[in-house]
Amino acid sequence: MGNTFGKLFHVTTFGESHGPGVGVVIDGLPGSFPLDLESVQLELDRRRPGQSELTTSRQESDKVSCLSGLENGRTLGGPITLYVANIDKKPQDYNDVNSVFRPGHADFTMLTKYGVTAQSGGGRASARETIGRVAAGAVARQLINALNPDAAIIAWVHSVKDISDSKSLDASVTREMVEQSEVRCPDSDSSRRMAALIRQMKADGDSVGGVIRCVIRGIPAGLGEPVFDKLEADLAKAMMSLPASKGFEIGSGFSGTHMTGSQHNDQMIKKNGKICTNTNHAGGVAGGISNGEIIAINVAFKPVSTIFKSQSTVDRAGNEITFKLESGRHDPCVLPRAVPMVEAMAAMVIADHMLRWKSLQPFIKS
Amino acid sequence: MGNTFGKLFHVTTFGESHGPGVGVVIDGLPGSFPLDLESVQLELDRRRPGQSELTTSRQESDKVSCLSGLENGRTLGGPITLYVANIDKKPQDYNDVNSVFRPGHADFTMLTKYGVTAQSGGGRASARETIGRVAAGAVARQLINALNPDAAIIAWVHSVKDISDSKSLDASVTREMVEQSEVRCPDSDSSRRMAALIRQMKADGDSVGGVIRCVIRGIPAGLGEPVFDKLEADLAKAMMSLPASKGFEIGSGFSGTHMTGSQHNDQMIKKNGKICTNTNHAGGVAGGISNGEIIAINVAFKPVSTIFKSQSTVDRAGNEITFKLESGRHDPCVLPRAVPMVEAMAAMVIADHMLRWKSLQPFIKS
Amino acid sequence: MGNTFGKLFHVTTFGESHGPGVGVVIDGLPGSFPLDLESVQLELDRRRPGQSELTTSRQESDKVSCLSGLENGRTLGGPITLYVANIDKKPQDYNDVNSVFRPGHADFTMLTKYGVTAQSGGGRASARETIGRVAAGAVARQLINALNPDAAIIAWVHSVKDISDSKSLDASVTREMVEQSEVRCPDSDSSRRMAALIRQMKADGDSVGGVIRCVIRGIPAGLGEPVFDKLEADLAKAMMSLPASKGFEIGSGFSGTHMTGSQHNDQMIKKNGKICTNTNHAGGVAGGISNGEIIAINVAFKPVSTIFKSQSTVDRAGNEITFKLESGRHDPCVLPRAVPMVEAMAAMVIADHMLRWKSLQPFIKS
Amino acid sequence: MGNTFGKLFHVTTFGESHGPGVGVVIDGLPGSFPLDLESVQLELDRRRPGQSELTTSRQESDKVSCLSGLENGRTLGGPITLYVANIDKKPQDYNDVNSVFRPGHADFTMLTKYGVTAQSGGGRASARETIGRVAAGAVARQLINALNPDAAIIAWVHSVKDISDSKSLDASVTREMVEQSEVRCPDSDSSRRMAALIRQMKADGDSVGGVIRCVIRGIPAGLGEPVFDKLEADLAKAMMSLPASKGFEIGSGFSGTHMTGSQHNDQMIKKNGKICTNTNHAGGVAGGISNGEIIAINVAFKPVSTIFKSQSTVDRAGNEITFKLESGRHDPCVLPRAVPMVEAMAAMVIADHMLRWKSLQPFIKS
Repeated sequence: MGNTFGKLFHVTTFGESHGPGVGVVIDGLPGSFPLDLESVQLELDRRRPGQSELTTSRQESDKVSCLSGLENGRTLGGPITLYVANIDKKPQDYNDVNSVFRPGHADFTMLTKYGVTAQSGGGRASARETIGRVAAGAVARQLINALNPDAAIIAWVHSVKDISDSKSLDASVTREMVEQSEVRCPDSDSSRRMAALIRQMKADGDSVGGVIRCVIRGIPAGLGEPVFDKLEADLAKAMMSLPASKGFEIGSGFSGTHMTGSQHNDQMIKKNGKICTNTNHAGGVAGGISNGEIIAINVAFKPVSTIFKSQSTVDRAGNEITFKLESGRHDPCVLPRAVPMVEAMAAMVIADHMLRWKSLQPFIKS
Repeated sequence: MGNTFGKLFHVTTFGESHGPGVGVVIDGLPGSFPLDLESVQLELDRRRPGQSELTTSRQESDKVSCLSGLENGRTLGGPITLYVANIDKKPQDYNDVNSVFRPGHADFTMLTKYGVTAQSGGGRASARETIGRVAAGAVARQLINALNPDAAIIAWVHSVKDISDSKSLDASVTREMVEQSEVRCPDSDSSRRMAALIRQMKADGDSVGGVIRCVIRGIPAGLGEPVFDKLEADLAKAMMSLPASKGFEIGSGFSGTHMTGSQHNDQMIKKNGKICTNTNHAGGVAGGISNGEIIAINVAFKPVSTIFKSQSTVDRAGNEITFKLESGRHDPCVLPRAVPMVEAMAAMVIADHMLRWKSLQPFIKS
Repeated sequence: MGNTFGKLFHVTTFGESHGPGVGVVIDGLPGSFPLDLESVQLELDRRRPGQSELTTSRQESDKVSCLSGLENGRTLGGPITLYVANIDKKPQDYNDVNSVFRPGHADFTMLTKYGVTAQSGGGRASARETIGRVAAGAVARQLINALNPDAAIIAWVHSVKDISDSKSLDASVTREMVEQSEVRCPDSDSSRRMAALIRQMKADGDSVGGVIRCVIRGIPAGLGEPVFDKLEADLAKAMMSLPASKGFEIGSGFSGTHMTGSQHNDQMIKKNGKICTNTNHAGGVAGGISNGEIIAINVAFKPVSTIFKSQSTVDRAGNEITFKLESGRHDPCVLPRAVPMVEAMAAMVIADHMLRWKSLQPFIKS
Repeated sequence: MGNTFGKLFHVTTFGESHGPGVGVVIDGLPGSFPLDLESVQLELDRRRPGQSELTTSRQESDKVSCLSGLENGRTLGGPITLYVANIDKKPQDYNDVNSVFRPGHADFTMLTKYGVTAQSGGGRASARETIGRVAAGAVARQLINALNPDAAIIAWVHSVKDISDSKSLDASVTREMVEQSEVRCPDSDSSRRMAALIRQMKADGDSVGGVIRCVIRGIPAGLGEPVFDKLEADLAKAMMSLPASKGFEIGSGFSGTHMTGSQHNDQMIKKNGKICTNTNHAGGVAGGISNGEIIAINVAFKPVSTIFKSQSTVDRAGNEITFKLESGRHDPCVLPRAVPMVEAMAAMVIADHMLRWKSLQPFIKS
């Protein structure tokens, strides 16, 4: 249950990390819409393992194929199914972990819930599940840009452990700036220090987490619903559904709780005849609805659970044991690869609310 | 759109702050379930304005009546409708604000989206909308306790601006401890300082925000779905759908990003024959599924938008103006009254996932 | 569970026949939409008991009040709640039936499912539940007509027992023609014979059923989805969710199974430059999508279960008994009052699919 | 949109008739559930073309493969993806029809809705889409039988054009009886006459329709919801979403409108201590909830639209033309192959309502 996301841009992912493959069914697309699979592949390439020495050495080309919904580059109106076969499965890597509940992993909860776990890898709890999300996000992005050519959804690594980027990038960051960095932090000095830290962690057999920041620019005012389906509520759900995420903020977030109302309220002004705000503590939303400013969110990711140090745990027979993973293919830091995942989830939320909004617009007369 | 929450515990709120009343329809309840309306009223009393001098002086008894679904204290199986009439409406209070977009409020976005706003108050964006949520949460709580008598959902004010409670209360806090405090902070020293700060802000015509912490204890392992409907994802959506919330954390949250994996991973141990963890950085979930530990979340609330200081804004005719609210009935700090709202949303999420889980349990053989 | 209908035009009914009242929450409306409550009342008047000697003598004015979502005759964008208090409750009428499972009624299944039944009347299984539907349908109709001024949804009594109207009325029938007839059959000769039969049944303490036909005119091609949410599938669900309905047909329906393909296929032609069909065996849909022709459906209603003759049944203690209802207030034929119910459900389906369609139209370039 | 069916047994089909393949994602299954793919294949074999000379000569082995959710014959708890590659595509068969709107087909409505149609075959409107349904139905059946070992869902061809089976088979029919007949009519005399008629139609280049009857036995009382999600409403939607279906009945259906209430009401009796009815005009439901009797429905299917006779239509350039299909691979009668489709949809509805029911049962104390 719970493998579907979105009301009108309706996305269902499927597949386990060591089964035949992983994929996604996207329902709710218009017909005759030009869908560029190359840009889908591009996003999957940004997500895939083995991009640099900072990431897991699992080698997956993650080549996407389209099983339905597309003909000659145009949608037919039915569901789009995007599929990636699993190639580089090494079940033997899991021989030494199958009998234990790995600390920080979902082994224990999955077994409790389902009475079974996948024999290799995390099954649905694996980060490979996000392939479907990233593919769907790439489709969502195309839908958004069809009506908002200037819209941009850009995420980057804002911090790794105690190292943060040092300047405000919300208005200026570009994808090119992000992609130039090995760790996807557009602040080059911080990027270097983050990379060094991640290498150090890898050498130590340890791991680190951090914060990804994502901005959504060029989205008109009016997206989001004022009660349960606030834009920030759906963004929060989207982000907290990503593996390893532990926190979400929009605008001023937790730091805004240290301000007074007179400091926090964004004053409204007019720029070039358009009503806007002179600060953006709100993060681009008011009352759950986009206000035309930059939507800015932070997502906290915990340090990766897979480490190569001794840990205490319990085996499936119920014995307390000491457990040490000797080898395997895992990222010491998930942040660089989480950047396209965050963007994808953001795009899915925006596309969904854009479709909802379109359904009512013909009736509104202000 | 978007006034319904939950898949099986299916809650729809309705009503504006200055219309006839506000309420909620709760669908998905079993029949012949003993429903205690007094405990619903109790929660509404905790939420209502005018509880102390720290809160708004709007006087609302907020007496709940049940319009459907209940007979002789037992559910009939159909939807429960709980309704609270609006009594103390003072539309004249809004005369001076109806022509402007109030900074920090949803006036501009609501007008952009709907082409109209309520003539008085915030309409659906008003905190009165949460009456329906608090009532539904009180019902959810009864459902949860029917199968888990020891379950407890307790929220409290963890911080107001720079003042935080000073000790870990997750395992020990009780509702009584919370209710003894005027600001609903069970740490009495912090509570006093918070109250003083809020009084100061009121005198200044300014406002403050803070963080509410909520623990959910006594919930079995197995609730939550491993992909989009992770327990923390649904909790995040629930909390970020509350008015004025700007951030959400579970377990270690943002601070966990400063740890290494070897520090963060909760080691698994056995206590009294039960598998548990010796720390709780995960916050009671793994892979989106409850693990039997205390579920612990933080929710950041921004300072209240309504202040009594000069602000720059734009009026509905499009002119930049200076705007100062002279009087009105508003909380200088929403935190104390947000405590029952946070608990209510948490209860709704837990009840929903409990019902989902029950639907599959008859089939699981571990 | 299951008290909500529609994806975007999202309707939730609540209330029992002998509780405080019945009503409906309608979510998914645009803001600033002029909503005419008088036309809602008009539909409720068509549905209410006591309209003529052919219907139940329960006297209910069924005056609708709006609890939310409307201000000065315009929608605010939030949910519209329409409510009708129950006035003429006579619980004593049910004293002699509370201890038995009435044949043809839901007493046994409701008790089995919920462990309880309402002490008087049918609870949620009562036809009073349809008040919320009829109100929502009246709202749906206004939404439809806002974009399709010529759209018309007209139902009438096509047959009562063995008496049928004798001519094709699909293209010509008007509401005025329907309302002129005591039984809502626009064929005056058939109408007289139906009325006589119903009076006879009432005198006999027996009841009859029949078929309601409904046409939907003026709806553009393109509504409906080609797989599960075919327009006819959603219409079928809508109609089969009405109390006492036992069958549904669109276009040629069951009688079309007696034709060959060469007889049944509607030939396509051009009229005034518009592509249309020269017959309408399809009933206005092809592949689940409206084709611009008249959508024509039939709904079969069984004879009313409440009769005043001796019947065999079982009491709640489990004894086989003979049971005879001596008096009560029940229609001998539900058909005349079911006309507005059928129209309401049809309007809800059309409005929902219109909103779905609008969400995608900005993207379609043919 | 609209490619998903069911609330808890959540089924999404994908794929076009001449694309890479067709399939289904089934979400909502428990974990560690033994899933037999052979019985899925068996159902697909019953549905596939080329089973006899009565059906289309398209040769498809329709071999199912499982892309996700299954390991060693047991479910993992995530979505099950079942996939069938399209093998025997003959796009050239469509060369002569691509430029015209075929009478009775969805060409015109699909083009109107989506601005495009599949270049070959019906795309999503093709009967190949039902492969996903039949596969999902085979899974649903296993879930139902896990808790109700005696449950049986059996459909058969009740009539072809004017030829009907002659005896009541509801209580006695078995799958073996159905499968012995070339046309899937267990009444051998009628079966022979139906087969002869279908052969005649094939020779004539014409087609016929008919009625499929389906019984659901061994289902406990209590399934279905009393308002919108009545069991018969969801069955109606399910059946009317099948290609070519034009009518639905439960129990007495349309013929029940010719009875009086005293004839129609099923009298309640006790048999072996169990409360049941002595007739079954209700068709196994009361107030939308199963009553423990046999659930019996009829589904009308129109004559197949593809015929080999001259027809008038309009081409895509807008010209009225005469059109005659010379050759192709099409069933002259869809009924025999629709039998497994009807069973599959029925199984999906029952499984969904069983899961819903299970979610509440722990709370009910009667």
